[in-house]
Amino acid sequence: MPTISILTDFGLRDGYVGVMKGVIWKICPDAQIADITHYIPPQNIHQGAIALLRTTRYFPKGTIHIAVVDPGVGTHRKPLAAEVDGHFYIGPDNGLFSLVFADAEARGVTCRFFILDKPEYWLPVVSRVFHGRDIFAPAAAHLANGVLLEKMGTPFTDPARLANPEPRRLGSGWLGEVVTIDNFGNIATNIGSKQLQGRDSYIVKIAGQTINGLIQTFEDRPAGELAAMIGTDEDLIVAVVKGNAAEKFNIKPGDLVEVQGTVGDPV
Amino acid sequence: MPTISILTDFGLRDGYVGVMKGVIWKICPDAQIADITHYIPPQNIHQGAIALLRTTRYFPKGTIHIAVVDPGVGTHRKPLAAEVDGHFYIGPDNGLFSLVFADAEARGVTCRFFILDKPEYWLPVVSRVFHGRDIFAPAAAHLANGVLLEKMGTPFTDPARLANPEPRRLGSGWLGEVVTIDNFGNIATNIGSKQLQGRDSYIVKIAGQTINGLIQTFEDRPAGELAAMIGTDEDLIVAVVKGNAAEKFNIKPGDLVEVQGTVGDPV
Amino acid sequence: MPTISILTDFGLRDGYVGVMKGVIWKICPDAQIADITHYIPPQNIHQGAIALLRTTRYFPKGTIHIAVVDPGVGTHRKPLAAEVDGHFYIGPDNGLFSLVFADAEARGVTCRFFILDKPEYWLPVVSRVFHGRDIFAPAAAHLANGVLLEKMGTPFTDPARLANPEPRRLGSGWLGEVVTIDNFGNIATNIGSKQLQGRDSYIVKIAGQTINGLIQTFEDRPAGELAAMIGTDEDLIVAVVKGNAAEKFNIKPGDLVEVQGTVGDPV
Repeated sequence: MPTISILTDFGLRDGYVGVMKGVIWKICPDAQIADITHYIPPQNIHQGAIALLRTTRYFPKGTIHIAVVDPGVGTHRKPLAAEVDGHFYIGPDNGLFSLVFADAEARGVTCRFFILDKPEYWLPVVSRVFHGRDIFAPAAAHLANGVLLEKMGTPFTDPARLANPEPRRLGSGWLGEVVTIDNFGNIATNIGSKQLQGRDSYIVKIAGQTINGLIQTFEDRPAGELAAMIGTDEDLIVAVVKGNAAEKFNIKPGDLVEVQGTVGDPV
Repeated sequence: MPTISILTDFGLRDGYVGVMKGVIWKICPDAQIADITHYIPPQNIHQGAIALLRTTRYFPKGTIHIAVVDPGVGTHRKPLAAEVDGHFYIGPDNGLFSLVFADAEARGVTCRFFILDKPEYWLPVVSRVFHGRDIFAPAAAHLANGVLLEKMGTPFTDPARLANPEPRRLGSGWLGEVVTIDNFGNIATNIGSKQLQGRDSYIVKIAGQTINGLIQTFEDRPAGELAAMIGTDEDLIVAVVKGNAAEKFNIKPGDLVEVQGTVGDPV
Repeated sequence: MPTISILTDFGLRDGYVGVMKGVIWKICPDAQIADITHYIPPQNIHQGAIALLRTTRYFPKGTIHIAVVDPGVGTHRKPLAAEVDGHFYIGPDNGLFSLVFADAEARGVTCRFFILDKPEYWLPVVSRVFHGRDIFAPAAAHLANGVLLEKMGTPFTDPARLANPEPRRLGSGWLGEVVTIDNFGNIATNIGSKQLQGRDSYIVKIAGQTINGLIQTFEDRPAGELAAMIGTDEDLIVAVVKGNAAEKFNIKPGDLVEVQGTVGDPV
C-alpha cells in the first residue's frame, strides 16, 4: 500500500486535514496516511522545516510526504515536488523542505526537484487559499498511483532555501540557540554531537542557569533539577527531570545557549 | 477498502474516538478511517452541520460519514442514517446533517432517510451516554460490510432540520453573519459568490472596520492589513494578511458583516 | 490487516506519534493504526492506566496496543510485552498496564508477561529518551508480522503494579473519588454498579453539592442542573446537563465523592 504523510500548520479543528485525506482517497483509494503534525505554529516555515527534517526519515522509502506551511498560498510561489533518497516531498516551494534537501546533500545524496505545473493532476477548480486540498493532495495521490514526477511537473534546480542558524565558536566553546520545545517542555538546541565530540565534560549555560556536565538518563538527577543530555537526534537537549524546563525558565525558540568544554580539546 | 469518516465534538483527549475505531474494526476489519474533526464546540450542532457541509463532499462516493454532536444522547431523539448522492451519513437525528440534506436537495438530489431501529446491528449493550460507540460506529461498520440500510432501519421522510441563517438585503447590498473562524483566525461568512456576482467592486464592513475591494491573493495587501476575498467555498472571507483577524478584531461566529457593491448592478 | 493502537502522553504537536507510525510501517507496511489518545497528562502513569483499561477492550482480539507514558525512559525500568485475553500490550513496565492486568485477572484470565530484551527487534540505535520509537514501535511491528513474544523477550511474572484507589465504606454508604474528567466536563468516579446495586435511590455528595437520585438520561433534568447517573463503564458519573460540571464546580481528579443509599439494604 502506498504510504503518505501529512504535516501542516492547519490545526485539527477545521477539518482541512480530513478534506485532504478525502481528496487523496478519491484518487488513490488504498493510500495509507499518517499525520506527522498539524500544530506547526501558523505560517512558521522554519519550524515546519525542522519538523520535516526530524521526522520524515523514519518513514519507509517510497513514502510521499505532503507538507503545507504556506503563507504565500495563491501568490507567485511555486508548487514543488522533490525526490530525496527514495522519499518524495510535495508542497510549496518556500523553503519548507530545504533543511531536508541540505541534510541529504551534505550526505552526498542527489535531490531531484520539479515544479508541479500540470493542472491535469490537480483538482479541476483550484482556489487561491487551499492548495493543500487543490494541488498538493491530488498530486501526492497521483504519485501514489504511480504517475511519474516527470509527467506531473518540470524539473528545476533552485528550490527556495532557508538559512538554518548554525552554532558559532565562542572562545573555546560554542554559542547556539534553542531550536524546538516539545510537549514535555524539553528544549532542543542546534548544538549537537558534532560540536561536543572529543570532550569529557561540559558546562551548559541557558536562561541564566549553569548546568555542570551531561547526564546519560533522566534518573541521574533528582526530579525538578535542570539537566543537559544528548537527545534523540544527537543534539544537546536541556530538560527538567520529571518537569517542564521551558515553562520553569521561560525559554523560547531562538534563545541563546552556550557550551564550554572543561577537559580535553576545545569543545 | 470501505472508507469511513468521523466528525464529533469529543475532542481527542479521552480516547472516545479511538474506541469508535476499535468497534468499527471489530466488525469491519479493513475499513479505512479518517478523522474530519473532533473539535466541534461541545454540543454545538450548528457548527457540526456547517463542518459536515464543507468537508464531506471531498470524500469518495461510498464514504460512510459518522457524525456525533449529540446533546440529546439517550433521550427520544432518533438514530439516523441517510444516503445522499452516493455518500452515507450516520448519527443523531437532531439537525446535524440537515445542511448536507438541504444542499443536496437544492441541487435536485433525492436523499433517503432511515431510522436505525434494528438493535441487532448495534453493540449488545447500549449505554445512555455513548451512542457513537454503541450504535453509530457498529451501524457504520455493518454498512461498510455491505448490509443495506433497509435491513438496519426503517425509512422515514422528516429528519430534523436546522435553520441556517441566510444573508438579507440591506439597501443595495447584503447583511450577513460570520459562520466560522478557522485556525488562522480567518473568518468565513454566509455571504458568497451568489450574492456578489455581477459586481465590480465592494465595500465590506465588519467589527467597525471598512474594507475596500476584494483581493485575489494574500500578496495583494501588506502583512497585517485586513482584507476580504472569495474563499475556498465560494464564500466571502475576511482575513488579516499573515495575521489572525479574529483575534485582532475580536470577531466571533454570529457577528454581523455587511457588503455594499459600488459599481454595476446592486450587489 | 494487523491492527495497532497507540496511547501516549506525547501530545500531537511534535511529530513523535507520526514518527512511531513511520517506524511501524517500515517493518510492517500494512499495519492499520489507530490513535487512542496522546493527551494523557505528561508522565501521569495512573491516568494512562485508567485510559487503557477503559478503551482497549473495544478493539478486536489480536490488536497490539502500544502505550508510552514513561517518566523513567532510559533508566532501569524494563520494556514490557504482555498478552491478555487475546490482546497484546507493549510499553514500559512501570504500572501503565497494571489496571488492565488486574481487571483481566479478576475475571480469571491468565496474563503472560515478557521482558523485551532482544535488541534485534529494536531499531539499530536506541536513544535514552524515545523508546516509543526505538523499542516499542519496532517490537509491535515485528509482533504484527507474526514474530512470537517468546522470540522477542523473556517471560517473567511480576510486572510493576499500580495501587488503584478503591471506594471505602462510609457508614451505610461509600466514599470514593473522582477518577477522570472528560472533554464535556463530565466526571467519572471509582464508585460503580458493584457498590450501588440493590439500592432504589441515592444521595450523591461532591464539591459541597448534594444530588438526590440518579437519572436515566440527560433529559430527565433541566439544562444547567447537576445530575448523577450510571455511565458508560458502569461507573457513577456526575454531569451538568448540557453544561460542564468540572468547570462549574472546579472538580479535579482525586476529589472526594460520597454516596448514601436511602432505601433497601445499605449501599
